[in-house]
Amino acid sequence: MTTAKPNVALAMGPGVVNRVFPPRRLDSLAPGMRLLSTEPMEDFTSPRSLELLAETDILITGWGCPRLDASALAAAPRLTHVLHAGGTVKHHVGDECWERGIEISTAADANSIPVAEYTVAMILLANKRVLQIARKLHTEKTEIEPDQVFPDMGNFGKRVGIIGASRIGRHVIRLLAPYDVQVVVSDPYLSAAEAAVLGVEPVTLDELVASSDVVSLHAPSLPSTRNMLHEGLVASFKPGATFINTSRGELVDQDALLARVEQGDLYAILDVTTPWLLPAESGFYTHPNVLLTPHLAGSLGTELERMAVSTIEEALRISRGEPLLHKLHPQDLAFTA
Amino acid sequence: MTTAKPNVALAMGPGVVNRVFPPRRLDSLAPGMRLLSTEPMEDFTSPRSLELLAETDILITGWGCPRLDASALAAAPRLTHVLHAGGTVKHHVGDECWERGIEISTAADANSIPVAEYTVAMILLANKRVLQIARKLHTEKTEIEPDQVFPDMGNFGKRVGIIGASRIGRHVIRLLAPYDVQVVVSDPYLSAAEAAVLGVEPVTLDELVASSDVVSLHAPSLPSTRNMLHEGLVASFKPGATFINTSRGELVDQDALLARVEQGDLYAILDVTTPWLLPAESGFYTHPNVLLTPHLAGSLGTELERMAVSTIEEALRISRGEPLLHKLHPQDLAFTA
Repeated sequence: MTTAKPNVALAMGPGVVNRVFPPRRLDSLAPGMRLLSTEPMEDFTSPRSLELLAETDILITGWGCPRLDASALAAAPRLTHVLHAGGTVKHHVGDECWERGIEISTAADANSIPVAEYTVAMILLANKRVLQIARKLHTEKTEIEPDQVFPDMGNFGKRVGIIGASRIGRHVIRLLAPYDVQVVVSDPYLSAAEAAVLGVEPVTLDELVASSDVVSLHAPSLPSTRNMLHEGLVASFKPGATFINTSRGELVDQDALLARVEQGDLYAILDVTTPWLLPAESGFYTHPNVLLTPHLAGSLGTELERMAVSTIEEALRISRGEPLLHKLHPQDLAFTA
Repeated sequence: MTTAKPNVALAMGPGVVNRVFPPRRLDSLAPGMRLLSTEPMEDFTSPRSLELLAETDILITGWGCPRLDASALAAAPRLTHVLHAGGTVKHHVGDECWERGIEISTAADANSIPVAEYTVAMILLANKRVLQIARKLHTEKTEIEPDQVFPDMGNFGKRVGIIGASRIGRHVIRLLAPYDVQVVVSDPYLSAAEAAVLGVEPVTLDELVASSDVVSLHAPSLPSTRNMLHEGLVASFKPGATFINTSRGELVDQDALLARVEQGDLYAILDVTTPWLLPAESGFYTHPNVLLTPHLAGSLGTELERMAVSTIEEALRISRGEPLLHKLHPQDLAFTA
C-alpha cells in the first residue's frame, strides 16, 4: 500500500447498498480513505466498472456481488483487500483471489449475532412451553394451569444441545451463559480444551439428540453435513423435545422430521426448510407443534447496519495499518457456511 | 440460637411441598439441622401444628402458608427465622413478626429469574417481529420478504424501556447487557448513581413510553401504581411499539390498551390482565397483535425447585452462623410486590 489514501469501491447486487449502508456509515471512511463512488458496481465488465476496478485498493462487497474471476482481478491491479459486508464469501471469492494473496475479510461474526439471538429467545420460550400454552389460552379462553398441562415446563435444569460449534453456535453458547441450563455440544472439530473454555460438555451427536430438551442446529451446509440428522436420529429425539433449525433444511431428513412432529411428541421451530418455499399443502404449516419463520433469523432490517459497521471498521483498520480482525483463510472455507 | 441443631418445620398450602421441594433438597438440610416433619403445616391451630410450632426454630414457608398471627407466634416461642420459598411474604408475614424481631427471608430473587427470562425472550422476538411474520407465513403460505413487511425489524439499535428497577426489572437489565439495545429505565426510586452502575439511562415515564420500541412493565402493584399507565400514556406509545406486562393488569388502563391495540399500531404481550380470566368475548383473545399467556412468566414447573434451592441455602447459612443473603426489612415491603 502506498502512503496515499487507499481507494475504496463498492460491489454488490441491486438495492443492497441502500439496505445495508446508511450514508453516515460510508461517510466515516472519509478521513483515511477515498470512496471512489457511492454507487456500487453490479458487474465487473462494464466500462464504468473497469474504470473503477483500475483504481480500487479495497473492495467492499455485499450480497449479490458478482464473482471476482480472473478477468475482474486482471482489471484490478491495485486490489489488496476484499471486505464482505455479509456472511459467506463463497459466491464471489474464488481460488484466483486467494492465489493472488488478496486479503479477505467477512462480517460473518456480525451476521451471526441475530441468528444466535433468535435461537436463544426460542430456547427460553421452548423450555417454558410459552407459545404452546399461549395458543391453548387463545383457543380455549378458559383458566389454564400451565404446569398441569406441561409439568416439565421451565428453563431451570434443562439440557440444551448445540450441534456445531460454529460462529453462530459459539455465540449461542455465550448468550446462554446467564441461564441455568446445561449446554452440550456436538462438533467433530471441537477439542476438549476448547469445550472447556466455552464451558460446555462435548458429546456425540447421537447422545446430544437423544438427551437434550432443546436441540439447535448450527452446522454449516457442506457435502459432509447433508442429511446429518437422518431418519434414525430424528426418531431418537427425546419425547417432548424442541428442535430449532436456523441452518439449512438439507441437513435434516425433512420427511422424517415431519413424521416425528406429527407423532405429537416433538416441537419444531424452523427458520429454514427444504424445499423452500414449502408447498401449501405441507403439514409443517398446520401442525400446532411447528413454528415456521421465513429465513429471518439472519441479519435483516436494522441488523444489516451491523454488517456495515463491521466492514467499515475493517477498512479503517487497513487505513491505520492494523491487521484485519475478521480475516478469512482459504482453509476456513471447507468448514464454514 | 443454641449450639444444638436448629429445628426446621414447613408451612404452606396443600400440595405445594411436592411441587416446590424435591425430597433430595429437603435431605440436604440434614447435616446441620433437624427437619421436624416432611409434612408441612397447613394451619397454625391444630394440635399437630401447635406441637410442631413449639419446637420450631426456622420455619420454611411456601405459597398458601397461613398467616403468622399473634396466636401462631405465641405458640412458637423458639421461632427466629421465617424463610419463604416464594415471592411476596405479605400474605403470611405481618407486623407481629417484625415486632418480635424474627428474621424474614424470601426467594423472590429466584422467583424473579423466570419472569426476566420470559421478558428478554419476548423483547428479542418483538424487536425482530418474529411472531408476526411467523403468523403471516403460516396463514399465507407464500414467499415473504420479512423486512419489506417490517422495514424496522431487528434488535440492533432499538430502545427498550424498563418501567420499574425492581428485582425483576434489574434482572431484565442484566440479561439485556449482551445485546445491542439501548436500555432506558423509569423508576422514581432509582438514583442516577444506581442507574450508572446498571448501565442504563434514567428517564421519565412519559419519555420512556413515548420513545421506546419495547416497553416492559416491572413495577410492583401498590396503591400508588394503580393505573400508572393511564389512558393518556397508553395513547403515547410509539407507533409500532410492543408493550409487555408481566406485572399486574391493574397498573394499566385495560380499556385504553385494548383500544390502542385495535388501532393497529401497538403490539401487546400480556402475562397478566384485569380481569383475570378475561371474558371469552374480550378482543385481547382475538386481535393478531396480542399474545396472551396465563400468568406463567413466574416460577412454574422445574423453576419451582430454584426457590427451594434458594430457601434451603438460606437455612444452611443460619446453621453455619452466616448472615442471610435474602433478608427482608419491613420498610422494603412498601415498595415491593
